[in-house]
Amino acid sequence: MYYIGIDLGGTNIKAGLVDAAGKIIYSTKTPTLAHRPGAEICRSMCQLATEILEKGGIDRKEIHSIGVGVPGACREGDGTILYTASLNFENFPLRQEMEAVLGLPVFLENDANCAALGEAFALSPKPKNMILVTLGTGIGGGILINGALYSGANGVAGEVGHILLERGGQKCSCGRRGCWEAYASVSALIRQTRAAAEAKPEGSLAKHIRTNGGRVSGKTAFSLAKTGDKEAAEIVNTWISYVADGVVDLANIFQPEILLIGGAISQEGDALMNPLRAIVEENIYKSGTPLPKLGVATLCNDAGLVGAAFLGKKEA
Amino acid sequence: MYYIGIDLGGTNIKAGLVDAAGKIIYSTKTPTLAHRPGAEICRSMCQLATEILEKGGIDRKEIHSIGVGVPGACREGDGTILYTASLNFENFPLRQEMEAVLGLPVFLENDANCAALGEAFALSPKPKNMILVTLGTGIGGGILINGALYSGANGVAGEVGHILLERGGQKCSCGRRGCWEAYASVSALIRQTRAAAEAKPEGSLAKHIRTNGGRVSGKTAFSLAKTGDKEAAEIVNTWISYVADGVVDLANIFQPEILLIGGAISQEGDALMNPLRAIVEENIYKSGTPLPKLGVATLCNDAGLVGAAFLGKKEA
Repeated sequence: MYYIGIDLGGTNIKAGLVDAAGKIIYSTKTPTLAHRPGAEICRSMCQLATEILEKGGIDRKEIHSIGVGVPGACREGDGTILYTASLNFENFPLRQEMEAVLGLPVFLENDANCAALGEAFALSPKPKNMILVTLGTGIGGGILINGALYSGANGVAGEVGHILLERGGQKCSCGRRGCWEAYASVSALIRQTRAAAEAKPEGSLAKHIRTNGGRVSGKTAFSLAKTGDKEAAEIVNTWISYVADGVVDLANIFQPEILLIGGAISQEGDALMNPLRAIVEENIYKSGTPLPKLGVATLCNDAGLVGAAFLGKKEA
Repeated sequence: MYYIGIDLGGTNIKAGLVDAAGKIIYSTKTPTLAHRPGAEICRSMCQLATEILEKGGIDRKEIHSIGVGVPGACREGDGTILYTASLNFENFPLRQEMEAVLGLPVFLENDANCAALGEAFALSPKPKNMILVTLGTGIGGGILINGALYSGANGVAGEVGHILLERGGQKCSCGRRGCWEAYASVSALIRQTRAAAEAKPEGSLAKHIRTNGGRVSGKTAFSLAKTGDKEAAEIVNTWISYVADGVVDLANIFQPEILLIGGAISQEGDALMNPLRAIVEENIYKSGTPLPKLGVATLCNDAGLVGAAFLGKKEA
């Protein structure tokens, strides 16, 4: 069987045809244009799925189901999008609308959970208990417990970015002060990089940024630190220690078999993971039992799409 | 059927005969004498169970199983105590030893998890997703997910006391700095009460403590605050805000149907729960979906015993 996965993001809607081994054999995308009414975005998703059905090269009878990863809260029971933070969906009957157009079963789930499902599928053996922490604009969390996604009593569990790092600390987008996300997201790293450069306009970091036309990304400090630059290394080390703080919290609460770090920044590999592992190992609650493994997400940008595609698979 | 529950604590071993409705119909206890070898403590537990079998008034054939709540990590598979923080058990084959003496099936589980199981049993309807936070010497956590206890990949999940409240803050017993437990346990409240009294030896709090022979408990500040004393109210309010910090973290991560506050201090009732609810409501991540309920544990001291007694019930 084959599966269609749709990753509904704030910038793009990506859709793909996925085989049973998790390989994407056809993919397509369109801009989300997030300001549009939900019904229009739904229509775009149907168009992408239709394109796959027509051009994907697989007979419709061979396609099991369609899964959608939603940046918000869903109710699995009736396939409703309850709420999204950045799009115009509220109590939107996505399954009903899409099934009417496409004639295939439609499943939906929070996007961070889809990513966790995709990443878990890529691991061998598939873990029973796994946490995926996605570092990006914010910090997303996907929780796999006893092999199944956990989304809480109301579909919005896993807001792991909004745990405390520093009581009364920096204001977070959620309204609380001192959230992990306000310190350890990639947006926070970018802010920290900019602030350090501004504080020392003649320093090596500020010069490096000027050389790059003033652009700052999550990679800026990492790449300069690799050349031996101490200013940049300090920013990187401090940021990694922020990341470690929340990872330790999640490890102490969940003690999963594996905790994966995802998001584009995870491609920094050892430069991120080695110091992260060292700090986590020092601070984790020790009980003489094996500690959770820390790994890098492997599917990364495709995880949400593959996980979404497989949403229906569990009921197959 | 009837069930024997044993609550192995650092001070006392409590054992009880529990009916199917969760009522304790016979109970007994003995001092733990925590310094003893594990094998001797195991013998004491067998003696308590034997006493119940002989004097409990219930025919042995009517007794389903024996459950033990252990202050540490257990491996359910073979009934081994892997580790305890405060007793001398390490890789101890408790099931094997107790079954050999008692001739009944023996189950074991972490004590905080047993308490969660007991408290969940006392709720109607029984919640599928519930967190029990027990405020005491430390902070314990019991996690119920999809109606089953969650203990992680290694049996020691739920160390909710060891999540961060303040990066680089007060040293915690676990070695990390700034853990929730270091601020929001009852031990922390006692330390905060003492420190406030010492800082203001002629203040109303210090006088109140002297009147009580210098004794300070978790109730000291609460009871004085109830008389309208501002010094005491400030201590109580600050401590409750610490409690709220971790409760918000757990609610954001788990979004359970209900989060229960347990431990003797929860008997402060509204004086604790009303301000706690207000702070949690202000700081919790809001997504337009129903927020987790905050409640007070009802079985309290008996929860661990009742939950332990029912450990075997799930497999019945």
